[in-house]
Amino acid sequence: MQIKELLKLTPSEQEVTVKGWVRTKRGQVAVTFIAINDGSTIHNIQAVAEGGAIDEETLKLVSTGACVAVTGKLIASMGSGQAVELKAEKIVIYGTADESFPMQPKKHSLEFLREKAHLRFRTNTFGAIFRIRHTLAFAVHKYFNDNGFFNLHTPIITASDAEGAGEMFHVTNFDMEKPPKGDDGNIDYSQDFFGRKTSLTVSGQLEGELGALALSKIYTFGPTFRAENSNTTRHLAEFWMIEPEVAFYELEDNMNLAEDFVQYVIKYALENCADDLTFLEKRLLEEEKSKPQNERSDLSLTEKLKFVVENQFQRLTYTEAIEILVRSKPHKEKKFQYNVAWGIDLQSEHERYLVEKHFKKPVILTNYPKDIKAFYMKLDEDNKTVRAMDVLFPGIGEIIGGSQREDDYEKLLARTKEVGIDPENIWWYLETRKFGSAPHAGFGLGFERLVLFVTGMTNIRDVIPFPRTPKSAEF
Amino acid sequence: MQIKELLKLTPSEQEVTVKGWVRTKRGQVAVTFIAINDGSTIHNIQAVAEGGAIDEETLKLVSTGACVAVTGKLIASMGSGQAVELKAEKIVIYGTADESFPMQPKKHSLEFLREKAHLRFRTNTFGAIFRIRHTLAFAVHKYFNDNGFFNLHTPIITASDAEGAGEMFHVTNFDMEKPPKGDDGNIDYSQDFFGRKTSLTVSGQLEGELGALALSKIYTFGPTFRAENSNTTRHLAEFWMIEPEVAFYELEDNMNLAEDFVQYVIKYALENCADDLTFLEKRLLEEEKSKPQNERSDLSLTEKLKFVVENQFQRLTYTEAIEILVRSKPHKEKKFQYNVAWGIDLQSEHERYLVEKHFKKPVILTNYPKDIKAFYMKLDEDNKTVRAMDVLFPGIGEIIGGSQREDDYEKLLARTKEVGIDPENIWWYLETRKFGSAPHAGFGLGFERLVLFVTGMTNIRDVIPFPRTPKSAEF
Repeated sequence: MQIKELLKLTPSEQEVTVKGWVRTKRGQVAVTFIAINDGSTIHNIQAVAEGGAIDEETLKLVSTGACVAVTGKLIASMGSGQAVELKAEKIVIYGTADESFPMQPKKHSLEFLREKAHLRFRTNTFGAIFRIRHTLAFAVHKYFNDNGFFNLHTPIITASDAEGAGEMFHVTNFDMEKPPKGDDGNIDYSQDFFGRKTSLTVSGQLEGELGALALSKIYTFGPTFRAENSNTTRHLAEFWMIEPEVAFYELEDNMNLAEDFVQYVIKYALENCADDLTFLEKRLLEEEKSKPQNERSDLSLTEKLKFVVENQFQRLTYTEAIEILVRSKPHKEKKFQYNVAWGIDLQSEHERYLVEKHFKKPVILTNYPKDIKAFYMKLDEDNKTVRAMDVLFPGIGEIIGGSQREDDYEKLLARTKEVGIDPENIWWYLETRKFGSAPHAGFGLGFERLVLFVTGMTNIRDVIPFPRTPKSAEF
Repeated sequence: MQIKELLKLTPSEQEVTVKGWVRTKRGQVAVTFIAINDGSTIHNIQAVAEGGAIDEETLKLVSTGACVAVTGKLIASMGSGQAVELKAEKIVIYGTADESFPMQPKKHSLEFLREKAHLRFRTNTFGAIFRIRHTLAFAVHKYFNDNGFFNLHTPIITASDAEGAGEMFHVTNFDMEKPPKGDDGNIDYSQDFFGRKTSLTVSGQLEGELGALALSKIYTFGPTFRAENSNTTRHLAEFWMIEPEVAFYELEDNMNLAEDFVQYVIKYALENCADDLTFLEKRLLEEEKSKPQNERSDLSLTEKLKFVVENQFQRLTYTEAIEILVRSKPHKEKKFQYNVAWGIDLQSEHERYLVEKHFKKPVILTNYPKDIKAFYMKLDEDNKTVRAMDVLFPGIGEIIGGSQREDDYEKLLARTKEVGIDPENIWWYLETRKFGSAPHAGFGLGFERLVLFVTGMTNIRDVIPFPRTPKSAEF
């Protein structure tokens, strides 16, 4: 039985067997206390081996990191902590671990644990993070399924470039030392596996739209890639994206969906990951003790999550936001690093000012200048702005980016050419605007940004099992 | 309101608006019947425009493929088919479609529809397939979540080769025309994005094991890749795999999990996709009419699915299976294309004989010769076979492949070297056998094979939205 279930039982000396990894061993020969964890919960179960019950040779092998099966009677716990403990009668050692086991019971830096990503799942912090990550992923599928969306698996290997300017990884089957050349001396991609140049997708949106313009409501949830040489706490070369797309939705419906969706999944985590969130909240408080007072958060982790779930998001246009920023104290006092003027791409410092200082709640900005947004966004009547929306969160800035899509064939074709995309390359995308076009809208949510926000972690490498970043593809 | 919901209403002349795509238009000016579908269900709703209710100009634009919003009163249907229909009072045309719209209401070949994958979602067949695909995907997540498994997102870009012999796609950020060379004249991969040679993953299993050896029960559900030049109805270069992995499971637990899991998801589809399955069942019957009697299926589509859900799978060892095959009529009469002898890799003809002729139910074969299986499978005591298991289905052959994993460090290391994998390359995998190793097991299910089986389709390119195959990466 898993420890999560075991800890819920009423102890009546029933015989149970626990299988898991030893976190700590304390005490002497007279009585030994063994904390065991199996990953099903943040909580350990304590096995108590009284003198003579377990032979000494076996007890010696019970050390931090060892894997064991302990059989015994479930009894009420004498000490504090859990309500039940296990009076050990038999211990089977599945796998030993000597002192070189890196996850000894002491504080490890997150950097060190990243280098031991194959073992960090066995720590409290990463156990909690990856249980929460799972719960959020399940909440995503449940939300969309319950609301009539169909999960669409859009392609990973692609010959098109959804963003028009993405830094994409090449995918090839050539022997790279000697790829076949054409008469012009250049590589002959017609001989490559797919008969053309291919890359890893940066977004499933274009294909998602094809699905939505038939099934009405779809969502994708899959890996996407950026070959951007950004060594920051916010960037991964490989990350998971959630992209719903809905026919007949206009910008306002899209905002309603984004707000409802993100509140749902966070609420789901609050309800289903209480123990793990409590642990991470305490961890954060500890972390913050070493920071100067003015850098500490006003809100605890669960307060911050409830804040997002319970507050209506503030909606305003980009133009209104610029006006607020221009009138703001940091702008007047030249405290912003980047200048503010209509037409700029908002920086993180601007987004955080709006969310954290001005409105003190999540913000949705809409109707951005067309020149700073993607070609597929629907032009507003003024021909200057597009029906874009960005959802901004405290601490994290942009967490969702979306738009109503251009559904007019001629306008979309013009924009395609304007930004330098060959219409031939996305003939199938353009064709959906020729045959039964419909208003439609959607957005993208970077899943790791959501996990960062919910777990309160600060480095995106700590919320994906095996991060892919410049010069790093271990495991 | 979506058509799926609308068709459940009791008609009382309430005003409703339907948004969707016109499938057909019949009738004359006096009264026009318009069948509309929005992808939420296989069923259309019929809008009836009586003479004069809708102006002629608008009615002209209502043609197959056009996208419309029809407002009117919901009334009891006069004709057969649906219980309700819509008395049209207002029609808004979102997008027109002229005669060049390829999805005209007539029979199209599947080959033709593959070339129009951006529009094939708008047909009955592909609408049904992709709704079922979604339902199966959701059932997968629900099954594992309900049973205490954590979804683990294993990496797509990898520097290791899980199968030891996979044909892998290279991933690079180099300008492929002039990659940097080292002093030895070879490409200097230390200058590539990840600082080493990287590929697309063929399986998330190795990393999945790392998760299971801490969280106990994990599953992956993500894209995997094979750069195999196989142009068949069974192979894709990019496909989705489901890989559960469980600590403390031995081979028998693993068989129980596989059987319970696959029965659950098929049952879930039977219960939640009845209309779509009924449609596909009729479609199959039509298809089979053109086949000679002896090539037609004994069972209808839903009979076949119930057969799998209701029968216990037959379990036997590889060695027992070979004995049955050697004694079989087709072997004695030399009707098998491939010879049967202990040590061979079973061919599809052998698997299908066991399932369809001999046992007449799904079969799980276990304990295969080690030489035809992967290095990570646990050696049996005889040192000749390994604790592998393959689940064989009617029509489709192998649908699941799995094993108990080798958890002994020395034995695993020896096998690694035996098959020619550099232990340095998977040091992190080997280390889990050094620190708290545990018995564990898992399996892989190719998701498209499952969708093929449930939909009764015969070409794997028809059950993934945008297939990736040799010389083809369109859309």
